[in-house]
Amino acid sequence: MAKPLPRYQKLEVTLRDQIETGRWRGGERLPSIRSLCQDYHLSKITVQHALQRLEALGLIEARERSGFFVVPPQNKFEVPGQAPTPDEPKPVSVSQVFQDIMTRSAAFDLLPACNRDEPPPGIIQLNRSIGRALRRQSTRFQYYDEPAGDQELRNQIALRAARRGWIAQADDFCITSGCQQSLFLALMAVCKSGDVVAVETPGFYGVLQLLEQLQLRVIEIPASPESGMNVSALEDVLKVWDVKACVVSPAFATPTGSVMPTEARRGLLALADRHDVAIIEDDIYAESGWLNVPDTLKAIDTSARVIHCSSFSKVLSRDLRLGWVSGGRWHDEILKLKLTSQLASSRFLQEGVAGFIAEGGYASFLRRHRQDLRRRRDQLLELLSGWNVSLRVTTPHGGLALWVELQEDVDTLRLYGRALQEGIVITPGNLFSVSGKFSNCLRISFAHPWNAARVSALKRLPELMI
Amino acid sequence: MAKPLPRYQKLEVTLRDQIETGRWRGGERLPSIRSLCQDYHLSKITVQHALQRLEALGLIEARERSGFFVVPPQNKFEVPGQAPTPDEPKPVSVSQVFQDIMTRSAAFDLLPACNRDEPPPGIIQLNRSIGRALRRQSTRFQYYDEPAGDQELRNQIALRAARRGWIAQADDFCITSGCQQSLFLALMAVCKSGDVVAVETPGFYGVLQLLEQLQLRVIEIPASPESGMNVSALEDVLKVWDVKACVVSPAFATPTGSVMPTEARRGLLALADRHDVAIIEDDIYAESGWLNVPDTLKAIDTSARVIHCSSFSKVLSRDLRLGWVSGGRWHDEILKLKLTSQLASSRFLQEGVAGFIAEGGYASFLRRHRQDLRRRRDQLLELLSGWNVSLRVTTPHGGLALWVELQEDVDTLRLYGRALQEGIVITPGNLFSVSGKFSNCLRISFAHPWNAARVSALKRLPELMI
Repeated sequence: MAKPLPRYQKLEVTLRDQIETGRWRGGERLPSIRSLCQDYHLSKITVQHALQRLEALGLIEARERSGFFVVPPQNKFEVPGQAPTPDEPKPVSVSQVFQDIMTRSAAFDLLPACNRDEPPPGIIQLNRSIGRALRRQSTRFQYYDEPAGDQELRNQIALRAARRGWIAQADDFCITSGCQQSLFLALMAVCKSGDVVAVETPGFYGVLQLLEQLQLRVIEIPASPESGMNVSALEDVLKVWDVKACVVSPAFATPTGSVMPTEARRGLLALADRHDVAIIEDDIYAESGWLNVPDTLKAIDTSARVIHCSSFSKVLSRDLRLGWVSGGRWHDEILKLKLTSQLASSRFLQEGVAGFIAEGGYASFLRRHRQDLRRRRDQLLELLSGWNVSLRVTTPHGGLALWVELQEDVDTLRLYGRALQEGIVITPGNLFSVSGKFSNCLRISFAHPWNAARVSALKRLPELMI
Repeated sequence: MAKPLPRYQKLEVTLRDQIETGRWRGGERLPSIRSLCQDYHLSKITVQHALQRLEALGLIEARERSGFFVVPPQNKFEVPGQAPTPDEPKPVSVSQVFQDIMTRSAAFDLLPACNRDEPPPGIIQLNRSIGRALRRQSTRFQYYDEPAGDQELRNQIALRAARRGWIAQADDFCITSGCQQSLFLALMAVCKSGDVVAVETPGFYGVLQLLEQLQLRVIEIPASPESGMNVSALEDVLKVWDVKACVVSPAFATPTGSVMPTEARRGLLALADRHDVAIIEDDIYAESGWLNVPDTLKAIDTSARVIHCSSFSKVLSRDLRLGWVSGGRWHDEILKLKLTSQLASSRFLQEGVAGFIAEGGYASFLRRHRQDLRRRRDQLLELLSGWNVSLRVTTPHGGLALWVELQEDVDTLRLYGRALQEGIVITPGNLFSVSGKFSNCLRISFAHPWNAARVSALKRLPELMI
């Protein structure tokens, strides 16, 4: 669907994939320019162009007379392990902890009460744009918006999709109350009670909650902290089980921040075609990537079986409650479900956000915000070095969190209870699975500035583990 | 639950019930003061007080030496008939017309494009309040609101409930994206696929759509255009069928505008207790009543089996997308469903609306708006007198629409197609049933001012029936 990339960009993407998914590790030397020319049948100038771009991204560095080396990540830690092979499908039963964390408004903050700064300029601009839309509202307060949502907002979303390899139209989208509702509508449209759904493990707890609510059965596919869902493990599962849908987060999956390499993505879609599985793409973190924003799965979806779900919650504002879904072959059904379950979305809100994007406010907010996130991730890695316990940690290039694996005897659910007594809210690892796995893991967010209060809270955690 | 009414008010309510539900018709004489004293064991002064209040409401008039007479309604028409006795439960299959009407933003307007006036002062005030909430947002854009919704908005909703006989707390409510979502969550919490749900017929098409979507079976209970659901017909049905829930709209039900008399309400709840049926109360039109705002069913719900659903869409703004649900014994399950299916609602929006109510803006908007609605209803009745066809019409004291019954050979679905060619959008009667009934009926809204364009559109309709 997308316009083919120039050759230097193709090589850049390939090498970036390899670096991000651990084929070349920090400190390792990349193949020489000459061997890259041979391996990829490219001219020297093309290879150099690609390497310069990777250098500009801070991923590699030239060392005189020695070639290009992968820049060691700030992370001094090893990467956590991958989950063991999949069990059989089982009903979901997720803990009360999720509801508890949400009631404390603490999904991404150790100390939700400590943040009372001025909003960044981008948010002020966004809110002004919504205010202008309100003043332009005239008598439209008396009408429901059309079920698919505001045309101009859908246009802006389509324009952004096009930069990620997917030539979409406004009519490909339906506006929702956030990515969670998009996932809900997608699962409602594809599955009926008792169906089996494959998910990554560790994976997003919100999806596990949805599967429980919709009385679906889940099969957990091991996901690597670096390269995401293990497609060959999925293949084994598809041979045995009749899987209706697969929920996957190819770009900065939570909790690990993994990115699926291009080949794994192609493999996933080929598998889905062969076994007639719906792919539900949770794309919510993609735009946070500071090195690059990975393409969406829709860019290589030739059979309209990818349902793309996303929202503005993770990169702009969690209080907008505006998301979208592009349902592929299930789109009409999803539109009908949206209409039936909530009639419409708020038009002035959509117009305000559409105006903010159209005027360039969103792009410049993102540029600044990504650098903030990168800096906060590095600070978090540095702070974790001060922990006097043994741990393994991921180093994502996007998303809002690190995945921390502690010694096997640490029980982070117990830690959750202890931390809560001191006003600290953590996200324990077993929230990210239905199998009681990851009980020695933690998701730690770097969404917020590391002010003194948060730094103390973080320092306090290892003391509470004993 | 509610404080007992003073005796004169009890009599007032009783007589009003009787007038509104047709026991005393326009032009008929009420019983004498003396016989009212005897029948109700009241003093003369109490009876006089009640009659004076009814006179002030414009419901009765004193004629010298003859007593009190029911004021003939503006409506010169007869009231449409009640639907025949119920059939057996059946799967729902509702027409595409609903989706079509919503896509045209035409749920309550014959000519959705013709309205571009200034918004009323109340709406400007509301939007300013939302704007202020946006400016106060600070860093809260980074946090999800708690699943139940903003505490202050829930407080304000509870305060309004108290005026309607229901002493509620903020924690009794969960904020939703509108009444449709409230109904959706209520049905999801109570029913599972294949369950039987009783509804009024004619009744709200949005509920029929929901039942279809959730694969529930429906049984239609005849509803009188004046007094709503026929409780003894429901009783017959409950003897035969295992009904899980009953969706009912006791205050200005759409499409007829009927109000359930107090005794029928008590009968309904007693039946529900006896047969263990959940009562889902669609309360969305209640606050539009210009003679009075009927109590909610919750006021007499002693067994927490009423799920109260409402929103601001019908009396304030259809573009807010803010509703609420109070789930009785199912409330925890509903809260969990809300969390799982959309995480949270927009906090700044809720704060803006809560501020508008707290400052008195909502109450004064409602006072003016109800009088607008009353006037527009009267204008519509007058305009219908000019139709050169035979018809029967309801005269509601609230809601946004009249229910018009035409001659049996008129097919309003065909009329829908014809009118659409001229840019006129009508709401055909068979949308309000799953049984193909009411094909000679129309719901006509008086939500909008009768400007020249709408008047011509309305005049054109009978010509298109031939």
